[in-house]
Amino acid sequence: MILKGMFAPIPTPFTPEGEIAFDALEGNIRHWKQTPLDGLVIAGSNGEWPLLSFSERVELFKACADLSEGRFTLIAGTHCPSTSETAELSVAASEAGCHAVLVLPPHYYKGQNSPEAVMKYFTTVADASFVPVVLYNMPANTGWNLDWKLVSKLSTHRNITGIKDSSGDIVQISMICKNAAEDFSVFAGSGSFLLPSLAVGCSGATMGVANIFPEACRAIFDAFAEGKMDMARRLQLALIDINQAVTKRFGVPGLKAAMDHAGLYGGPPRPPLEPVVEKVRNEIIAIHDEFKEYYEEVSS
Amino acid sequence: MILKGMFAPIPTPFTPEGEIAFDALEGNIRHWKQTPLDGLVIAGSNGEWPLLSFSERVELFKACADLSEGRFTLIAGTHCPSTSETAELSVAASEAGCHAVLVLPPHYYKGQNSPEAVMKYFTTVADASFVPVVLYNMPANTGWNLDWKLVSKLSTHRNITGIKDSSGDIVQISMICKNAAEDFSVFAGSGSFLLPSLAVGCSGATMGVANIFPEACRAIFDAFAEGKMDMARRLQLALIDINQAVTKRFGVPGLKAAMDHAGLYGGPPRPPLEPVVEKVRNEIIAIHDEFKEYYEEVSS
Amino acid sequence: MILKGMFAPIPTPFTPEGEIAFDALEGNIRHWKQTPLDGLVIAGSNGEWPLLSFSERVELFKACADLSEGRFTLIAGTHCPSTSETAELSVAASEAGCHAVLVLPPHYYKGQNSPEAVMKYFTTVADASFVPVVLYNMPANTGWNLDWKLVSKLSTHRNITGIKDSSGDIVQISMICKNAAEDFSVFAGSGSFLLPSLAVGCSGATMGVANIFPEACRAIFDAFAEGKMDMARRLQLALIDINQAVTKRFGVPGLKAAMDHAGLYGGPPRPPLEPVVEKVRNEIIAIHDEFKEYYEEVSS
Amino acid sequence: MILKGMFAPIPTPFTPEGEIAFDALEGNIRHWKQTPLDGLVIAGSNGEWPLLSFSERVELFKACADLSEGRFTLIAGTHCPSTSETAELSVAASEAGCHAVLVLPPHYYKGQNSPEAVMKYFTTVADASFVPVVLYNMPANTGWNLDWKLVSKLSTHRNITGIKDSSGDIVQISMICKNAAEDFSVFAGSGSFLLPSLAVGCSGATMGVANIFPEACRAIFDAFAEGKMDMARRLQLALIDINQAVTKRFGVPGLKAAMDHAGLYGGPPRPPLEPVVEKVRNEIIAIHDEFKEYYEEVSS
Repeated sequence: MILKGMFAPIPTPFTPEGEIAFDALEGNIRHWKQTPLDGLVIAGSNGEWPLLSFSERVELFKACADLSEGRFTLIAGTHCPSTSETAELSVAASEAGCHAVLVLPPHYYKGQNSPEAVMKYFTTVADASFVPVVLYNMPANTGWNLDWKLVSKLSTHRNITGIKDSSGDIVQISMICKNAAEDFSVFAGSGSFLLPSLAVGCSGATMGVANIFPEACRAIFDAFAEGKMDMARRLQLALIDINQAVTKRFGVPGLKAAMDHAGLYGGPPRPPLEPVVEKVRNEIIAIHDEFKEYYEEVSS
Repeated sequence: MILKGMFAPIPTPFTPEGEIAFDALEGNIRHWKQTPLDGLVIAGSNGEWPLLSFSERVELFKACADLSEGRFTLIAGTHCPSTSETAELSVAASEAGCHAVLVLPPHYYKGQNSPEAVMKYFTTVADASFVPVVLYNMPANTGWNLDWKLVSKLSTHRNITGIKDSSGDIVQISMICKNAAEDFSVFAGSGSFLLPSLAVGCSGATMGVANIFPEACRAIFDAFAEGKMDMARRLQLALIDINQAVTKRFGVPGLKAAMDHAGLYGGPPRPPLEPVVEKVRNEIIAIHDEFKEYYEEVSS
Repeated sequence: MILKGMFAPIPTPFTPEGEIAFDALEGNIRHWKQTPLDGLVIAGSNGEWPLLSFSERVELFKACADLSEGRFTLIAGTHCPSTSETAELSVAASEAGCHAVLVLPPHYYKGQNSPEAVMKYFTTVADASFVPVVLYNMPANTGWNLDWKLVSKLSTHRNITGIKDSSGDIVQISMICKNAAEDFSVFAGSGSFLLPSLAVGCSGATMGVANIFPEACRAIFDAFAEGKMDMARRLQLALIDINQAVTKRFGVPGLKAAMDHAGLYGGPPRPPLEPVVEKVRNEIIAIHDEFKEYYEEVSS
Repeated sequence: MILKGMFAPIPTPFTPEGEIAFDALEGNIRHWKQTPLDGLVIAGSNGEWPLLSFSERVELFKACADLSEGRFTLIAGTHCPSTSETAELSVAASEAGCHAVLVLPPHYYKGQNSPEAVMKYFTTVADASFVPVVLYNMPANTGWNLDWKLVSKLSTHRNITGIKDSSGDIVQISMICKNAAEDFSVFAGSGSFLLPSLAVGCSGATMGVANIFPEACRAIFDAFAEGKMDMARRLQLALIDINQAVTKRFGVPGLKAAMDHAGLYGGPPRPPLEPVVEKVRNEIIAIHDEFKEYYEEVSS
């Protein structure tokens, strides 16, 4: 399995009462089907995985698989703190119809994260899973970096197929591209560094902003593929503000606010995440509209 | 409720098959009853809380309450990533017979940890809980520090009774002692800085090493209380090596190895935690025996 | 040489034109002679050493030695980025009449700070110096921590006599107290953690606040020595606000503002350091006066 | 003044006795004149600026200007801890014949680095200097990051012409490219992320490895300019190992060892920097030769 293209790390929609809003999910997916998105990441960091129960995650995997009707490559976020639960949820994800699973390194007991312990965690999960494992490096949330040496070793496992690296460390991403096994897919984990990641060899990206502006994101891929580096650069630089607003700066609540504004269902996050305050909502709207206007001008 | 004295953050014993070993737990608690321990912390970091299911934690709270027969103050680790689950588990802990609950700040989405969001998390949990909440600052695991200003604000909530600060930042601990509400209990979160914490006003401590050497730990409390500062200092300096070995250096697997050696039930941790390798086990045994010998000499 | 007691890390006074204000220095030292201070640290971090030329530092050492008339133990800050210059300035410091030299680890090329390289730096300087070397750990400024293992090794050098540890890591300070050579002096590098440092075995401290409130600082030493732990604790907790204001929070400009208010000569710092703005000056004055009032009440 | 192209941050050659080896400098510069290098950075981090005296730096600037005979754009590293000394050395650099000066943010008193203080430092220096100022962000050495917002503000100063950003934070570099004043030049501060930096809009780079492999570095620039992204990527990935070896991993001593091997004069660094040990020297030689072989194959 080779991962390629543009994936949206979709948020999990909740009703005002805090239940998963499956109707809203259906609406969102119906919309995304008409965009150039290649795949969806379900119950990743943007999907509030730590705030979902095991059974909610399985339901979500099923719902997304049913609603996608084969249109998307589906990557299910199946990381759990314990090895056995991650393995179990990975099996459930494949039974639900997902095509790959996204797994973080262990991180609460990070002081005990020897290379051997981390290798064993991923190897056990990959051995148990019926679908390929995608490694997920997200030090801003986990407080622990999965380095390129370890990734390169893991890349030789027959059922570990790629990595989503959200570290933003472009030298590390380069070293993975250089040293990982052939056919190992390297994905940029953020739209804020898509173009430089493509330049060093990434085959795709998961990008918060792809939930809202998939066409614009696709335009960067296309411009790069066609050698229009100047256009690619201008789009990339323009994209950073809105991408940072819906990821690093304002997090999942920021992404949901932007989706509400863009005509998708964002809705409330689950506590302890709190909806953005009015002032932030207005800032996000302004950043959203500025980018939208810019993109329409450029692409017309 | 005022927390005072010496608490052991007990490990959760597992059978070789990975189930909770209630027999072993009974044996350990029977032993601890004959020591000067004042209380137990159940399903804290040493208790591998992230690797336990919700229902396992409830079972564990019940078992400890039953086995303690009123001998110990029981603090139940009830932190969950979602606010509602933490509240629910806190209620279950009180129903199980525990006297207080230990709650970490939210930490996966640490980028969204505004003072307001963190206040709301703890306030919601404290409002819902039937027993007092003890704050738990553990930046080495969470990657996020709960600072003294926030703690001082939270300390005025009628159902937030204290903090276990494992940061090791002695100025921060001092500032909490100075600025928190009266009757707010400040606990050192490690035996490696017990004496300096007592010196600046802490009323007690939870200490990994108290699982194995409660008498020696008690001797530091006593020496301090009696103004025997020289004896207190010598014991404290001697204690650091063994305490670091069963906490920061080798983690829960190190603590379990030391307990196995000391005649208690340590047993295996749950993956992704791995048992210590032979070389480390031998180092832990050597450090254990060196301290034991030292303490016997000093106390005779 | 055993270092003991309370040292003030004195600021270097400048005229409004930016020259060293030797008259002001004389006035300050005349004042300090009438206080319980044991020693002065000259051209340390508070003395703006990086902003002074080699020859200015030598002049300053001489002036302080002359003005002290044997009243103080004088520690000269002689760290320079290059080994040979540090050695040379250390020799000049002894010729100027100082009793010891204070030396930081190399830190610009911190990526090359192998234990061997750092050992060699300090050993070369200590071999060359006619007076004992005091190690100086100041990670907040240098970005590099001198750990207890390295300190313990260095402590066996016949001409390395002690350490001023400003890290605030009380476990590290404890480990130095435990593992360093006999007669090696361990100094707390800040008044914010004086009492806990004494509790684990430090023999003294250099404290920014000792420039302004030497009697109050001395009172903590005395209370500790006399076993009046409750009094020691209350003074320590009260001292932190003013000490942080003249060190970590507002730096040398804050200390100089407080000295101006207290009737000593503070004056302007050298650029790039800038005098505190009016709002900060007022905050410092308020914190100063609050402590002064508290101390007068307690000590009367 | 617009900075463009490839600059070598040249090491300062020393004789075995520790004096500046002007003969060796002449030999090196004679060699570099026959390469595609566009400019030299003198007395930067690779030039061991903290280990040189003020007058040595001036001599070095003069020697490089004389030896270059107009062949290179010359950027003089003139940062000093004090504002006035930096201004003075910047004036001396222009009188010596250099075309621009490279200036770090203040960093010893990093706790006092308010945006205002940093702005004032750079503004004062830029006002005083007769040649344009190039900002220099080097957090690995300084422990302090000069962020894109501050850089964007500084970029409007008429005599601040560009930045060399060695942070490796590609999103930050992108934001500078997007937000800085028109005609402000953004340089990648390392060969390890040259291509991604060009992709987001940098106009050039200073690269440790350009001291040894200027043709290969130039080949990346050329491939990028000609839209040969695949070739550019392959060269970039191959270049990282040797560039890391002579920068981040083994520092100035590593660069000097590689130069010795490559037929240039490397020689010893100044203490506290120590020459690499034999094992490291052999590793560097192996990495050097591997890249050389690769490049000869690719370029033939």
